[in-house]
Amino acid sequence: VTGNDELRPWPRTRDERRADYGIFEIVRFRARSPRTGEDRPFTVIEAPDWVNVVALTPAGDMVCIRQFRHGTSAFTLEIPGGMVDPGEDPAQAAARELREETGFTGGPPELLGVVEPNPAILTNRCHTYLIRDARRTTGTEMDAGEDIEVVVLSRDAVREGARDGTIKHALVLCALAFLEDRAEP
Amino acid sequence: VTGNDELRPWPRTRDERRADYGIFEIVRFRARSPRTGEDRPFTVIEAPDWVNVVALTPAGDMVCIRQFRHGTSAFTLEIPGGMVDPGEDPAQAAARELREETGFTGGPPELLGVVEPNPAILTNRCHTYLIRDARRTTGTEMDAGEDIEVVVLSRDAVREGARDGTIKHALVLCALAFLEDRAEP
Repeated sequence: VTGNDELRPWPRTRDERRADYGIFEIVRFRARSPRTGEDRPFTVIEAPDWVNVVALTPAGDMVCIRQFRHGTSAFTLEIPGGMVDPGEDPAQAAARELREETGFTGGPPELLGVVEPNPAILTNRCHTYLIRDARRTTGTEMDAGEDIEVVVLSRDAVREGARDGTIKHALVLCALAFLEDRAEP
Repeated sequence: VTGNDELRPWPRTRDERRADYGIFEIVRFRARSPRTGEDRPFTVIEAPDWVNVVALTPAGDMVCIRQFRHGTSAFTLEIPGGMVDPGEDPAQAAARELREETGFTGGPPELLGVVEPNPAILTNRCHTYLIRDARRTTGTEMDAGEDIEVVVLSRDAVREGARDGTIKHALVLCALAFLEDRAEP
């Protein structure tokens, strides 16, 4: 896929206004349309990069979590994940989130893929790592905003959960698709 | 996957504070942890549902779009999509976005799947539709905030774009995975 010379970036024409919400900042600015020459307002969500982790036990099962999610006000079945801390390597963040949320640790994180959660309104990326030989070696370190149940599921049960809609989280579905695309078992 | 009786919802304890950013609202509230009994602050992004569209031409090629995205300040290769209008059926929204963004129309939208873009912080869902027999029948109706190039690609080119990272949008990757999972061609 090659670019079209007629498609050009939109220069920002006005200083940003920001609102800090802790886990992300809202940034508002104006940018000039290269097509119409007109200034338009845009709002984006500036967030740190996220990670999620496909953690497989020595038996090949997957370490999953259930928790109450405040966006949808519902329980979800997901894989472990979270925000990359400032200055932290995404691979380290993956191992840290796995440990904190589940008490599991394993081999060195292997990058499975990177996605943009929503390039229209989110500035960040989500990195998916595979951690093999995951075993429960420590206690969980849930922060006060978390209440997590660890569920170890077979690969088939996870596939079925993705197919039947039990797993609905887009970033988790991307992680599972990366895993399936990987040639080796 | 069955629920654990120990995992309970978090009751909201404080009135919400809202900030309206047009394409979404930021909602802040406090909720009580069922684990610790402590009140914690949460921030979520209340957005209308989104749709995206896998539109296949009579030859089986896919109608894709390139555009500048202000979240990542970069050009993306995506499929058509957008927000469901108030009171609009998601299937209608899919046909409308395809028409407005590309000038293509086709058969009745068939639901391929539904995902939650991020249940931790987003309240909404994204509906993916398949539209067959898509042909360019009309002009595009880009709004002043859009500048879109239509690119019709073979299924193989799209698969390759998903594999090599040309297509990075998580919701688009979910749509393509739904299409691949569908048994019929």
